[in-house]
Amino acid sequence: MKFCSNCGAPVTLKIPPGDSLPRHVCDACNAIHYQNPRLIVGCIPEWEDRILLCRRAIEPRYGLWTVPAGFMENGETTAQGAVRETLEEANARVEVASLYAIYNIPHINQVYMLFRARLLDIDFHPGAETLEARLFTEREVPWEEIAFLSVRNTLDHYYADRRGGEFKFHLGTIERPRPGGRAS
Amino acid sequence: MKFCSNCGAPVTLKIPPGDSLPRHVCDACNAIHYQNPRLIVGCIPEWEDRILLCRRAIEPRYGLWTVPAGFMENGETTAQGAVRETLEEANARVEVASLYAIYNIPHINQVYMLFRARLLDIDFHPGAETLEARLFTEREVPWEEIAFLSVRNTLDHYYADRRGGEFKFHLGTIERPRPGGRAS
Repeated sequence: MKFCSNCGAPVTLKIPPGDSLPRHVCDACNAIHYQNPRLIVGCIPEWEDRILLCRRAIEPRYGLWTVPAGFMENGETTAQGAVRETLEEANARVEVASLYAIYNIPHINQVYMLFRARLLDIDFHPGAETLEARLFTEREVPWEEIAFLSVRNTLDHYYADRRGGEFKFHLGTIERPRPGGRAS
Repeated sequence: MKFCSNCGAPVTLKIPPGDSLPRHVCDACNAIHYQNPRLIVGCIPEWEDRILLCRRAIEPRYGLWTVPAGFMENGETTAQGAVRETLEEANARVEVASLYAIYNIPHINQVYMLFRARLLDIDFHPGAETLEARLFTEREVPWEEIAFLSVRNTLDHYYADRRGGEFKFHLGTIERPRPGGRAS
């Protein structure tokens, strides 16, 4: 951020009076521009013993697989956002069941919120940001080609819970990957 | 938003190619400025059979009571944000126990995330945005002076759960108040 979105004048990074963190403050109109983490909402769409995954047609992680998810929009609830993303990415209709996992990813200022959801039919097909959408059994999941560590962890928990006979809510944090380590 | 925070030129509200919603797009550098919901993180600080509430020294809802909570900051986890807000608003130290409630408030583009937390001591005192910080038993809670409906609902559930002997996670939505209806 270099300019004030309110008046167009340059902004300066400084700690406003009474605050404790540096903010972008307008040199002309004194507007304070806060930047906050974004919510990524999505779901694990279920059909019998299979789940729907989407192969990404966009960066980052072009060509890798993920659950349908994306940035929550203003004016919607978290569950509505998950339903919308599933429709956009896979043209798939779901009914949200329960909140399944939340992952903090502080180094990129994101919070993932993933629901379990029931596919209402299997008449789905890839949306504009998806190369391929298909159903996978646990054995078929492309474990080495999952786009994000938050999704990989969620699916690990998901199948462990399913084997255990009970789906439990998971709250976790994805740390910044170490140099040479596995990507997040 | 009237000006581009990247180059200072005017922005126009329009639907970018491949998108489905209007965004603020820069007329000069074509930067797209997304606006997304914000997360409010906080906690219910517990000490024996009492909880810590804060009386607000700022608008909105100056003078009314709430749990310690505020906007999640970049670079932190949701639980770290809840601990930080409790320290800022009441100079109180807590250990987060579990996620207790999430409330969507779509008409103001907010998502509340509240944890149960254990006060580590009761040597607290009001922070700069707080008029008064004190412990309340259920009977003492100022029910008619709670600042936000999300907090009121959370406390309703909290005491119902405590009477029932089990704290269950709650996910809800606060709808836009009807004209003449109760405030959110």
